[in-house]
Amino acid sequence: MNLEVIKQVRKNVPLIHHLTNQVVMNFTANGLLSFGGAPVMAKAEEEAHNMASLADGVLLNIGTITRADIKAMILAGQAANQKGIPVVLDPVGVAATSFRTDAVNEILKEVKPTVIKGNAGELANLVDTPWETKGVESIGEGNIAEIAEKVSIKYQTTAVLTGKTDIIHTTKERITNETGHPLLAKVTGAGCLLGSILAACLTTDAPIEDQAYTAVHFYGLAASYAAANPSVQGNGTFIASFLDALSRDPGTLESVIT
Amino acid sequence: MNLEVIKQVRKNVPLIHHLTNQVVMNFTANGLLSFGGAPVMAKAEEEAHNMASLADGVLLNIGTITRADIKAMILAGQAANQKGIPVVLDPVGVAATSFRTDAVNEILKEVKPTVIKGNAGELANLVDTPWETKGVESIGEGNIAEIAEKVSIKYQTTAVLTGKTDIIHTTKERITNETGHPLLAKVTGAGCLLGSILAACLTTDAPIEDQAYTAVHFYGLAASYAAANPSVQGNGTFIASFLDALSRDPGTLESVIT
Amino acid sequence: MNLEVIKQVRKNVPLIHHLTNQVVMNFTANGLLSFGGAPVMAKAEEEAHNMASLADGVLLNIGTITRADIKAMILAGQAANQKGIPVVLDPVGVAATSFRTDAVNEILKEVKPTVIKGNAGELANLVDTPWETKGVESIGEGNIAEIAEKVSIKYQTTAVLTGKTDIIHTTKERITNETGHPLLAKVTGAGCLLGSILAACLTTDAPIEDQAYTAVHFYGLAASYAAANPSVQGNGTFIASFLDALSRDPGTLESVIT
Repeated sequence: MNLEVIKQVRKNVPLIHHLTNQVVMNFTANGLLSFGGAPVMAKAEEEAHNMASLADGVLLNIGTITRADIKAMILAGQAANQKGIPVVLDPVGVAATSFRTDAVNEILKEVKPTVIKGNAGELANLVDTPWETKGVESIGEGNIAEIAEKVSIKYQTTAVLTGKTDIIHTTKERITNETGHPLLAKVTGAGCLLGSILAACLTTDAPIEDQAYTAVHFYGLAASYAAANPSVQGNGTFIASFLDALSRDPGTLESVIT
Repeated sequence: MNLEVIKQVRKNVPLIHHLTNQVVMNFTANGLLSFGGAPVMAKAEEEAHNMASLADGVLLNIGTITRADIKAMILAGQAANQKGIPVVLDPVGVAATSFRTDAVNEILKEVKPTVIKGNAGELANLVDTPWETKGVESIGEGNIAEIAEKVSIKYQTTAVLTGKTDIIHTTKERITNETGHPLLAKVTGAGCLLGSILAACLTTDAPIEDQAYTAVHFYGLAASYAAANPSVQGNGTFIASFLDALSRDPGTLESVIT
Repeated sequence: MNLEVIKQVRKNVPLIHHLTNQVVMNFTANGLLSFGGAPVMAKAEEEAHNMASLADGVLLNIGTITRADIKAMILAGQAANQKGIPVVLDPVGVAATSFRTDAVNEILKEVKPTVIKGNAGELANLVDTPWETKGVESIGEGNIAEIAEKVSIKYQTTAVLTGKTDIIHTTKERITNETGHPLLAKVTGAGCLLGSILAACLTTDAPIEDQAYTAVHFYGLAASYAAANPSVQGNGTFIASFLDALSRDPGTLESVIT
């Protein structure tokens, strides 16, 4: 973990423009606020370019995407590419329907993401590898390192594949992460909020592999730390504890894990 | 309560496709995850049919319905009917405006719901019985058993009428339920989440009256159990405690109520 | 603080129709329920007029506004003006993009708000005063009393300018408020929920300056009270504690502050 990444986020409070799904907007905004960033979540296609141009980073998450959203996402992503700020693409449930597959293809034709983040089923779909999925969940098994590598090569990007083991694959190297907690799977949008945390970390001046690994590693530590709180008795109390934990220093989070 | 219903949900983790209102999406998804199901909440009309076809059950909730949503709901409901999976219809605030009344009529012309769930004011409206309402709340009084029966006959469905006493009326019999807690009335979407829990229970192979009663009875028990937690001091702490409680075994919930 | 305002809200349970942003709908509804009001959040332009006509007050919040929303807001605001019920306008992030500036201008041409509520950057924009903003946040400094006064004169309304010090400016007088807590800035929609609480207080028969000051003063007290709860360790636990606190008596909230 590169502590400089966390420090810079908290010093600069990067403004992240989110075009994300309606299920997780509130949780994502509160999670990013706790971590140290500043969320904005404008939706209208008329202001997508302008709002992204004001931001330090952009998150595109297709969880509840409609045709109007696709256009707004492309405009926001293009503005980010023009300005040279990071774009995270989270192709939620891309394998579930052809509408989603087409939407992601449309976006990827017009926007170059800095990071593509998803579970194994989502990233496998992007490189035409068969994988078992259920709605927006990945339930298949296979060579996740290979999937991540293929995504990084095909899209010339950094792939962040989340799961029990997370794989970060830049165009040059692979890093694995083992932090995390089973309760995250019981919280809707746990993956979506990570996309926002990633976008914030990508606004710092550390190397991309440090930015991505720090985001993913810190996120998993925060989950373990939160779950260890004696007040946590299920996903409801965990959500509150996890939002709290995202504001902690990395050292504090680590102290409880050992 | 038929414990087999809860057991089967937790074993099979049914995928419920939600076309529901924007106020309650996050709470509903977390509630269903805690209970043991898997939520998906795609909105686009282009994928409504496909997503419902992948699911084990469908929830249609009109709380913030727009014209585009009506079409998506009909497509999802029809896909569910074709596949033979359960459909729950929650006609939130149907009596409030003619737009809602028309929307529900349009849906009911095209989709056959397995369960229609609502408060007394909503169900009374569906059978043209006068009832006092306030926004999306029911504040009138009258013969709720009769209302539920009329809905079950008119729509050849199971009616679940929620209130201080809940009435479950299949086409053949009536069951009443008394579990619940006043704090549920202070949580937005408490009724909406019950629709999702109902949909999950309807995916099991128990008789419909067992499925519906178990969902409603368990839900009320979970509310009482959650409210008894000493950490609960209002609706904010109750929400967290209630989400936690939805993951408990029925026996655990019952132990605290006596 | 005029205790009669709180008492009347809790006795009458005013129905507030919200046309508000998707990030904060759930939090706002639960906050208003805890405080003592009744939320409704219909979105469709087809029912905007009808739903507002059934309500006791209307909140217009442009946080995630789209073109369709602008029309619905105008219809709801006009219905409220015709019926003589209060309208609160919250021009979230109005300075960020020309789309927002135009949207607010369109609304203000057709609707007369009882209160315009916003941070310094938002209200400064409405009176063409330069101010530094970042996304939907105000980060500039300047004469906030003058900004509030200008808004009240230009729009012949009551301006509520929120910040470390809050300014309430009716067309006749200025009141300042100092209650509040830094954790509010870590909760998305803290300002948005205040708009809803304001709308509820405006339905009472107290003078406008009492209604507005009571809403703002009570809200800040609730935040301090909530933050003093030993369970609060960050924004997640604060959200739950704050929702709880909104249901308390003013005397209870004050007892902890000293």
